[in-house]
Amino acid sequence: MNLLATLQDIVGADHVLTGAAAQPYLTDWRGRYTGQALAVVRPASVEQVAQVVRTCVEHQAPMVPQGGNTGLCGGATPDGQGNSVVIALARLNRVLQVDTADDTITVQAGCTLREVQQAAIEADRLFPLSLAAEGSCTIGGNLATNAGGTQVLRYGNTRDLTLGLEVVTADGEIWHGLRGLRKDNTGYDLRDLYIGSEGTLGIITAATLKLYPQPVAKCTAMLAFNDMPAAVRMLARARKGFGAALTGFELISHYCLDSVTLQFDQQKWPFDVSGRQCPWYALLEISDSESADHARERFEAVVGQAIEDGDVVDAVIAASIAQSNELWHLRESIPLAEKQMGKNIKHDVSIPVSRMADFVEQTNAQLQAAFAGVRHIVFGHLGDGNLHYNVAAPAGSDETAFLQLQPQVYRLVHDSVHAFGGSISAEHGVGQLKKDLLPLYKSEVELALMRKIKRALDPHILMNPGKVINSADI
Amino acid sequence: MNLLATLQDIVGADHVLTGAAAQPYLTDWRGRYTGQALAVVRPASVEQVAQVVRTCVEHQAPMVPQGGNTGLCGGATPDGQGNSVVIALARLNRVLQVDTADDTITVQAGCTLREVQQAAIEADRLFPLSLAAEGSCTIGGNLATNAGGTQVLRYGNTRDLTLGLEVVTADGEIWHGLRGLRKDNTGYDLRDLYIGSEGTLGIITAATLKLYPQPVAKCTAMLAFNDMPAAVRMLARARKGFGAALTGFELISHYCLDSVTLQFDQQKWPFDVSGRQCPWYALLEISDSESADHARERFEAVVGQAIEDGDVVDAVIAASIAQSNELWHLRESIPLAEKQMGKNIKHDVSIPVSRMADFVEQTNAQLQAAFAGVRHIVFGHLGDGNLHYNVAAPAGSDETAFLQLQPQVYRLVHDSVHAFGGSISAEHGVGQLKKDLLPLYKSEVELALMRKIKRALDPHILMNPGKVINSADI
Repeated sequence: MNLLATLQDIVGADHVLTGAAAQPYLTDWRGRYTGQALAVVRPASVEQVAQVVRTCVEHQAPMVPQGGNTGLCGGATPDGQGNSVVIALARLNRVLQVDTADDTITVQAGCTLREVQQAAIEADRLFPLSLAAEGSCTIGGNLATNAGGTQVLRYGNTRDLTLGLEVVTADGEIWHGLRGLRKDNTGYDLRDLYIGSEGTLGIITAATLKLYPQPVAKCTAMLAFNDMPAAVRMLARARKGFGAALTGFELISHYCLDSVTLQFDQQKWPFDVSGRQCPWYALLEISDSESADHARERFEAVVGQAIEDGDVVDAVIAASIAQSNELWHLRESIPLAEKQMGKNIKHDVSIPVSRMADFVEQTNAQLQAAFAGVRHIVFGHLGDGNLHYNVAAPAGSDETAFLQLQPQVYRLVHDSVHAFGGSISAEHGVGQLKKDLLPLYKSEVELALMRKIKRALDPHILMNPGKVINSADI
Repeated sequence: MNLLATLQDIVGADHVLTGAAAQPYLTDWRGRYTGQALAVVRPASVEQVAQVVRTCVEHQAPMVPQGGNTGLCGGATPDGQGNSVVIALARLNRVLQVDTADDTITVQAGCTLREVQQAAIEADRLFPLSLAAEGSCTIGGNLATNAGGTQVLRYGNTRDLTLGLEVVTADGEIWHGLRGLRKDNTGYDLRDLYIGSEGTLGIITAATLKLYPQPVAKCTAMLAFNDMPAAVRMLARARKGFGAALTGFELISHYCLDSVTLQFDQQKWPFDVSGRQCPWYALLEISDSESADHARERFEAVVGQAIEDGDVVDAVIAASIAQSNELWHLRESIPLAEKQMGKNIKHDVSIPVSRMADFVEQTNAQLQAAFAGVRHIVFGHLGDGNLHYNVAAPAGSDETAFLQLQPQVYRLVHDSVHAFGGSISAEHGVGQLKKDLLPLYKSEVELALMRKIKRALDPHILMNPGKVINSADI
């Protein structure tokens, strides 16, 4: 029997998509990559996933796992050869168990992140992973890319929130690893090997995740700084003063806040005229397990001291949930304001917090020297050293011509990131976008170890080819 | 040149030990295993470790990495063949960097855990890993076994405290992975693969670890319960009421507390006569980032409610640091009291917290049915589902005869752990002790994945043979 007929037998003819029906699965969310596929298959159970994988192995068909198709590095888009099978996990969308005694939730890979968050809330718990695409990204994709987001400072990346996995191996066998244990030292850490491997070693079909108590109260503020070192010092104060209650510390440049208020009429500067002159701002959030009054008291004590010491120039503390939402809305509107203003060259990088200020100063200067007049769009999760360091064409210049410089800008910025001991992909992964950059910044020893693992766990070299590791190198 | 002469060239003749000088390295801490070795080599740098490994590979000599030799599963003891080289990491004992802006510490593998803790304290930070052997175990051994301890509930296992590693691979190459980044999604998670692999894939020579703020105050109490479900309910209250401030929740059976106070005159029951009748106790600790008064207020509110609701029968809240130390001392004296009372059969297991009470009840009953009169010594880290579930001979019976039953007792207890969805090694690892048990409780799919990784990363099959995976199976 041929491949398509066998796949139809496994998942039903309605769930083997070709032609126009397959199109939405063949282009990535940002529209950077478009590929071809023999078919898009939509299995409904882990057993079907395993059968699909075994069938593809028999027919030597490359497989491309796909969740919500919201990845930012093209990791879920097939190449142009047209011989791949896209395995879409969307129908594996059940919440299998919520256990409030163990504080765990077990979900299938195709659940959206919001569905997981929602199931936690219904059990009076918090699943803290939170990111812009949460309404449409799936937890399987979050696991495959080890997604980050705004709560990493307190709760860690997706990896840190995961206790157990169910995985279909590259041979089409099922590893039943859905453990909810906090301690289990019985062998190699397969879980963390699959997490972040972007579908190149196997397919994650379900996971057991950690839940946390819902905070009783939150307190949010926007702070203004005279320079970035002051923001870094404030982070240290906040860590010490709030301990684990510190759940957000988002850095925002003047240019970013200005863009948001210029682009969107309903978005207002939270500061008066003097506060609007500062080069840097931070959105600070704490989550309290006691009361709103307690949260506010602590907040005022720590931030008050920072004002007294001159580190914080101005501060707006949200007096209500509505005002807190307004502050977060300013932060979350940055990417939209960016988009409104045209295209730019984006970098998702991390730098040790202690070197962040020097990195920005020196890299900005290097960019100005090489590409005079470029605009710096800098914001991100200062609390975990993650910057979205984007570079836009000089005002009034030819944007299209500037975007042609992407390889040179990439090289300059990533070289600087590397020199500062940072990472060229903090939270978005490698996918197609950065796989050819890895050899510039990773040692041959590390790359060789990755290739050995790839060959060991995907011996047919059929799992998501052309992602993370260059196929020619395997 | 022969192997010994080459090793002497690399590390100096003084640091290649044979004969009597090698003896202390050939028996494990509990005295369960004694092996033989061609030599014990004590390299002083990562480059020397790499040279030693390359030399051993050339001579096809098996290698056994060793830290403080305090492991509980024989993972650092060579087998009896006498052809192994023990690679002792004790001379790699430098704290390389403490970074208070990034809250990281970078240390060589041979530092003792206490030295790491101490370096953190000197920088006004907390390195939270804490366990009985901390004065002599090394951080390299903690990493190799993914050690747990009493603070896992809040801060996680050694794995969760680690950001970057330096590793000498099984080929004698150096992977320089000492990153202090909180976010880095650039490829497979090699770090977590080496952590917990017990020296069977390579040798960890240094690590970059997370630091935390020192808590401003702590509050400690001993609570008494009428049954284990009440203790589990108290854990849920504590999680909700204290959030991340909850740093300890140690379960102790009546028999354990009784043994400590009987064995050691200076150790007193913290309760009056009625409190002494309870079957279960818990040592509860919170760490506060505000003040001692605040810690105490929160504590009294949450525990007070539990008393009012009848879950807690009696509570002793430490009024001073001295009293807090006394309560912890009771907990920490359990293993010594055990030892004083003779040998027993030990199990280091984890169970989902929600099933813990049923596990203890049913397993106790099964043991009584099979081995009437045995004494149950049950204590552990309830907060992360980890029990030290030990079984002693019936009072007055022949201990030696009872210890002969270890295989049967192991089987009964571990079968029960498995049936309850637990792990047969929560925090001590596998080593020699449990490697033959893994096939009973792990699926063939998982074991096959482990073997594939072993063959990929240790192609000469020379790294710590006979540990974790049975050599015959590779």
